Amino acid sequence: MNLQNISQSKVAGGWHKQYQHDAKSVNCMMQFAIFLPPNASETNKVPVLYWLSGLTCDDQNFMQKAGAFKKAAELGIAIVCADTSPRGDGVPDDENAAYDFGLGAGFYVNATQAPWNKHYQMADYINQELPALVEAHFPVTEQKSISGHSMGGHGALTIGLKNQQNYQSISAFSPICNPIDCPWGKKSLSNYLGNNQSDWLEYDASQLIKAGCILPILVDQGEADQFLETQLKPQRLLNAAEENGVDLLLRMQPGYDHSYFFISSFIDDHLAFHAKHLKAINDIK
Amino acid sequence: MNLQNISQSKVAGGWHKQYQHDAKSVNCMMQFAIFLPPNASETNKVPVLYWLSGLTCDDQNFMQKAGAFKKAAELGIAIVCADTSPRGDGVPDDENAAYDFGLGAGFYVNATQAPWNKHYQMADYINQELPALVEAHFPVTEQKSISGHSMGGHGALTIGLKNQQNYQSISAFSPICNPIDCPWGKKSLSNYLGNNQSDWLEYDASQLIKAGCILPILVDQGEADQFLETQLKPQRLLNAAEENGVDLLLRMQPGYDHSYFFISSFIDDHLAFHAKHLKAINDIK
Repeated sequence: MNLQNISQSKVAGGWHKQYQHDAKSVNCMMQFAIFLPPNASETNKVPVLYWLSGLTCDDQNFMQKAGAFKKAAELGIAIVCADTSPRGDGVPDDENAAYDFGLGAGFYVNATQAPWNKHYQMADYINQELPALVEAHFPVTEQKSISGHSMGGHGALTIGLKNQQNYQSISAFSPICNPIDCPWGKKSLSNYLGNNQSDWLEYDASQLIKAGCILPILVDQGEADQFLETQLKPQRLLNAAEENGVDLLLRMQPGYDHSYFFISSFIDDHLAFHAKHLKAINDIK
Repeated sequence: MNLQNISQSKVAGGWHKQYQHDAKSVNCMMQFAIFLPPNASETNKVPVLYWLSGLTCDDQNFMQKAGAFKKAAELGIAIVCADTSPRGDGVPDDENAAYDFGLGAGFYVNATQAPWNKHYQMADYINQELPALVEAHFPVTEQKSISGHSMGGHGALTIGLKNQQNYQSISAFSPICNPIDCPWGKKSLSNYLGNNQSDWLEYDASQLIKAGCILPILVDQGEADQFLETQLKPQRLLNAAEENGVDLLLRMQPGYDHSYFFISSFIDDHLAFHAKHLKAINDIK
């Protein structure tokens, strides 16, 4: 079967498990992790929160550092953590192996430029292939929400905004809100998508949100984040949301930085936010 | 000043900070981490839980993976995480750089054998030098409890049992309970202390507990722990405690393994256990 279990540990009464699978969209073996809460079973399927991590991360950073399992177990939510880029010997990387482009830095786009376009199809992987696989093999419903951190916050926002029918709610920690106008975004988008900047707009949350959003959005941002002014720019997202009547709550958190210490401090709020919207749909069924 | 801050992050309303200092007992620079809860101040000093990590770990494993901050913040307890051995270019290591002896594997003993005895004085470092430093420089009381995982569980039990006047309570996850009779223990104790096995007894919790203990002890052990039978042997500790009237609760936890996923599942119970005993003393004051 195209799904191989590579680890499992009981945690908070549920299970943390890692899998590998041969992913068609990105043309390589991909690894992901899933947390299944104690109440998940074939007769009691649970909704899923998809988590997208930031630059340099893989499927484990959130699972090991976010401290999310107790609350997710209590709320009855599964969590799926994807990798942040395609991986493997055949997958091209930044020529200098930089941390902010290439391996570990897929930016959750569908690349159009060679050599990146053969593997860097992370938007399709996250929005289509991974959920289809998870829903086929685990005791989960089709109810999904999406969240992430930094580059993964950008991924959660852009994938959620472009596919609002697929998700119930969107949240982000310290997201890259306007990648067409920051150094991390410009480097990645020009390489993956080419130099025609109009092609970048569909991967910029502050642009996408101008078309409106029927989903609620929660964003937490640390005020002591070293990347706040140069890379993240949440005020631009908030302004665009307010101008277009989108239900977006931006919480500026004094003293917090860009680390998982910040995420672990507020992840319970995000889980409760998503649970409220996932539950509302389930109750209708 | 002999105390250099090397990182700080706000977390759960408090602060996680890392420091380096020139440690006399172990003759090298040592690194440790401290969590200060939101209510800690010079006018409101808080008690401290000392955490000792296991083989291969340093001061960060618990801080990043245990998910302990929310409960510690709520209870008003500081947490100090030490390193697991002396470090640095001049510190000898296992001749094959093995994971279970030498660097990252100090076993919390005071070594008597060359070349180990120059630096591997971890029992004194944990029980004397580190608390004195912490109490001199941070808003903490002298009230202390001690806990740890695996080799660090062995450290917490043996240091706590030998210095009952210094602590209010002892706990451990998956501790090495009878190191004089398991492969990890025999390798380390023979190297650090020599081949006279009577010299090992003061570093074996199942032996030390025969002299009694006035402190309460909580031990959690996963039943799916791969090291349970060969290395850990908690039943021997429980038997010795029961035969000698020691207040030790051993909880066998079905399905859990040796990882931090296990620790994160039950750390709140340990924090509440220690808080109860630390608070009781504070209330008397």
